[in-house]
Amino acid sequence: MKLAAGEVLEASRPDSPAVAASRAAHAAPRPAWISLRPTDEVAAGAVDPDAPLAGLPFGVKDNLDVAGLPTTSANPLLADAVAATSAGAVARLEAAGAVAIGKTNMDQFATGLVGTRSPYGACACVADPAYVSGGSSSGSAVAVATGVVPLALATDTAGSGRVPAAFNGLVGIKPTRGLVSTGGLLPACRSLDCVTTLTRTVAVGRAALAAMIWADPDDPWSRPRTPRPPAGVATTMRVVAIPAGPIDLDPPSAAAWAVAVARLRRLVAHVVEVDITAFLAAAKLLYEGPFLAERWAGFGHHLEPDGPHLDPTVRQIVLRGQAIDGASVFAAQDRLAGLRRATEGTWTEVDALMLPVTPNHPTVAEVAADPIGVNRRLGTYTNFVNLLDLCAVAVPADPRADGLPYGVQFVAPAFADDPLLDLAATWCGEDAATPAVPAGSALLAVAGAHMSGLALNPQLTSVGGVLRYRARTAPAYRLFRLNVPGVARPGLVRTGDGPADGVAVEVWQLPQQGLGALLGLIPAPLGLGRVELDDGTLITGFLAEEYATRDATDVTHHGSWRAALTAAR
Amino acid sequence: MKLAAGEVLEASRPDSPAVAASRAAHAAPRPAWISLRPTDEVAAGAVDPDAPLAGLPFGVKDNLDVAGLPTTSANPLLADAVAATSAGAVARLEAAGAVAIGKTNMDQFATGLVGTRSPYGACACVADPAYVSGGSSSGSAVAVATGVVPLALATDTAGSGRVPAAFNGLVGIKPTRGLVSTGGLLPACRSLDCVTTLTRTVAVGRAALAAMIWADPDDPWSRPRTPRPPAGVATTMRVVAIPAGPIDLDPPSAAAWAVAVARLRRLVAHVVEVDITAFLAAAKLLYEGPFLAERWAGFGHHLEPDGPHLDPTVRQIVLRGQAIDGASVFAAQDRLAGLRRATEGTWTEVDALMLPVTPNHPTVAEVAADPIGVNRRLGTYTNFVNLLDLCAVAVPADPRADGLPYGVQFVAPAFADDPLLDLAATWCGEDAATPAVPAGSALLAVAGAHMSGLALNPQLTSVGGVLRYRARTAPAYRLFRLNVPGVARPGLVRTGDGPADGVAVEVWQLPQQGLGALLGLIPAPLGLGRVELDDGTLITGFLAEEYATRDATDVTHHGSWRAALTAAR
Repeated sequence: MKLAAGEVLEASRPDSPAVAASRAAHAAPRPAWISLRPTDEVAAGAVDPDAPLAGLPFGVKDNLDVAGLPTTSANPLLADAVAATSAGAVARLEAAGAVAIGKTNMDQFATGLVGTRSPYGACACVADPAYVSGGSSSGSAVAVATGVVPLALATDTAGSGRVPAAFNGLVGIKPTRGLVSTGGLLPACRSLDCVTTLTRTVAVGRAALAAMIWADPDDPWSRPRTPRPPAGVATTMRVVAIPAGPIDLDPPSAAAWAVAVARLRRLVAHVVEVDITAFLAAAKLLYEGPFLAERWAGFGHHLEPDGPHLDPTVRQIVLRGQAIDGASVFAAQDRLAGLRRATEGTWTEVDALMLPVTPNHPTVAEVAADPIGVNRRLGTYTNFVNLLDLCAVAVPADPRADGLPYGVQFVAPAFADDPLLDLAATWCGEDAATPAVPAGSALLAVAGAHMSGLALNPQLTSVGGVLRYRARTAPAYRLFRLNVPGVARPGLVRTGDGPADGVAVEVWQLPQQGLGALLGLIPAPLGLGRVELDDGTLITGFLAEEYATRDATDVTHHGSWRAALTAAR
Repeated sequence: MKLAAGEVLEASRPDSPAVAASRAAHAAPRPAWISLRPTDEVAAGAVDPDAPLAGLPFGVKDNLDVAGLPTTSANPLLADAVAATSAGAVARLEAAGAVAIGKTNMDQFATGLVGTRSPYGACACVADPAYVSGGSSSGSAVAVATGVVPLALATDTAGSGRVPAAFNGLVGIKPTRGLVSTGGLLPACRSLDCVTTLTRTVAVGRAALAAMIWADPDDPWSRPRTPRPPAGVATTMRVVAIPAGPIDLDPPSAAAWAVAVARLRRLVAHVVEVDITAFLAAAKLLYEGPFLAERWAGFGHHLEPDGPHLDPTVRQIVLRGQAIDGASVFAAQDRLAGLRRATEGTWTEVDALMLPVTPNHPTVAEVAADPIGVNRRLGTYTNFVNLLDLCAVAVPADPRADGLPYGVQFVAPAFADDPLLDLAATWCGEDAATPAVPAGSALLAVAGAHMSGLALNPQLTSVGGVLRYRARTAPAYRLFRLNVPGVARPGLVRTGDGPADGVAVEVWQLPQQGLGALLGLIPAPLGLGRVELDDGTLITGFLAEEYATRDATDVTHHGSWRAALTAAR
């Protein structure tokens, strides 16, 4: 993705690399930066004006290598550890024309969501210094939110990119694990760490991400982008879930959340409620369970001997990882596999989940009074995302009544980054081009065994079918379990007396030739006709002949064929 | 897959379930069975004659539940633990008409590859009782090899299905992890355990596997079969690798291995050599590293207090898992991720790897003299398969000169089970139908950026393309790196003076419409013509115009475009 020239200008103005470097050098009082490239060195750099990110200045969280600067992870004892080469993510941004100007402050060893756990000084929220900046990518967030740079690299293992984004009114993109190389990163949890972006717009973060995505043969945790969207991921997200029932939110955040939900209802076709118990249970495994041993494995050697260079809270937490036994790790991974299974069903019915980023926004004083407890609560809605192999993006919502920035996040399965960022762009009022249906292709609405993951879905995928979007029918339809041999199949019939919220359908894009071949496989009483969707559009889709409903079971009340199948299990 | 009536008859004759049960009840002196259903109960069972496995009697390793029988995992203290319901794999075989007749002996807690670690008695090789049967699925192998049952279920975490198959002249199928539910299995390593088959033919094992494959929503380690072959997996395997350089084999096994390699060269189009160092390094993680903690997590509670019901070697090994710390587990998983990455490249050049199953075949006395050391060596070529997420099948090769059965294994990436079993069937002289090219589809030979995983491969997969097979050109061709803008591309040119072993190509099956669309995307100097392959067939494929080779680099000596790209990195 190449930014239009105007977008780059807008993103970087008035921050030419040299101006940004100069402003960073004079930034005070918030301690956003740990080290900076000299302003004259930045100014002297040559930039290819045709590069996609030409001249875009950026900051880099101080756990990622930048050649010529030390990588401290906020441990001053490492201030002499000058990196010889840049981290893969940094190098790819530079190759795309962006210019690194320095390294940003962070919760030490990326262990924290508060932004106060640094010997280089606590960062604070840009809107009110009594409140924390959020972390661990605190300096990156402050640097972008104060306008010093339009882009800063962060990392996000438990929420370290999304939490400071939310607390400072920014966009924080946490892509699918492995899309961006973690080569040259001082790890928090190696198997979970993600390089992420902090920006003021989705467009700039997305352009940076496009430059950074790369299957790094030298990073064992790197994964190639899938050539096609994974099963069940729609190219356009129209069904977004929110948590069912009450969730943990303090009063100002609860009010802001309600405003965000109302905005979501205006923005997307369908807002549904889902039970998020299993997601929240997975979240607790990260800091309260055996995954602390991975932190110990990754950087425990930096924690001995103790000294004033170490943050006491970080040290106290990570030392616990030393005592965790191997059997507990395997037991936790087994439990996590069970929770992953328990959450998978969510993604067969909805495209994305909208969640708060945090339950609250603590003050610096509250964190000081209970550094571990306050931090733990902050991770309620972010900790599970990498454990369950999801992608996410934090976006600014309307500020809280007290004037503090407020953010929500959209979460989706791994490799759903593109449609998720389209959704985020739409939320932010930016362009999100809906791809046109290519010539030679047609749309097909399916309501039964051809839906994602069900028995006949391979008839669509094997001819190159792609799920475009989830929708519901107009109110006129009813769904019947047909009395036919073989695979259980429903029939959708326009009876004129269906429920107000219709019946769930998936709209697939197929090559016209594939659609023709499919028609030859359809047994009576099924056929293809025109199905009216909730937005009044008419799409070619499966319909059943009315006569066959006379000995069939009406399953309309389940709302979808998938739900009817589950109920029959 | 339904067996033809004759195949079931052949497989089970003269073993009707009742006859099999009766023979098992009188089987001696080898202690293959731990518990048996009463012969009259088996005889009284009703069988649907139209079921795909109608009347096929089978044995079940005693770590898998069979309703009404105890599940001991060869621990006599569990002999009263009668299962209320059958394991998922057993239930699905029964639903397909097969009849469980009893539970088979095993290395206790499936921890061993020898077959002697059981308080129920050591099993021995069916060809010579001085030699071990192999394990841990020892009783299942003996029960099949002595003709009592045509099918026995085994499990294979480190090689427990393949080693006894090789030592007793059987076929041992270890499918992709997660295809068969491990619900109702007393675990060895929960994240790695596989339910497997032991049979005399590939056809019977394959039919059993087809009945057992099922995405179990209640088993967190279950994975659905992919609707399409994964990237790089060909539907027909024609390029098989063997280890480069000397490997660990005792003299009788080395001689048998050489015979097997010679047979392979007659059987498949291309035998190539690959470095297996990284595979062997992964193997050592299973018993010599932190994965022992997963055994401790899974069944450590059965090992205290000590007593005569516990095998002393198993107890000694697994107790070590108690002392392993969590950080070591994460470090090992990180190392494993690196080794997985290091081995991935193998599967872009070859379809399958042929390996010995074991380096040797020890005697019972040798095992008794050094129970841990001898066992460890047995896992050299099997331990890594589940750790690296591969599928495998052990097949009988020509016996060793001393008359002992000898087996080799074919190994391939996850979800390559179908073509791998075709290869195994071909090896065994059984039918392996090559699927016809469907009407409306065409074959296309690609030698450059359209190959699996390379830059333009999505142009093939996005229109429903499937990799049919890997091949090489006839000797007449040369490969050039063209001097073109954009994606680096080679040109294949019939110069008449190419190397004897040709140039690597992949033959893809595409919808004809997709092929037409592709033609429109091809820039000069490339085009589609007819490419002669090593077997003399002419396939539509990419060719370059000769003029363009004059300023191009000849990369023919690399043997493939992929190798030329790697060399240029």
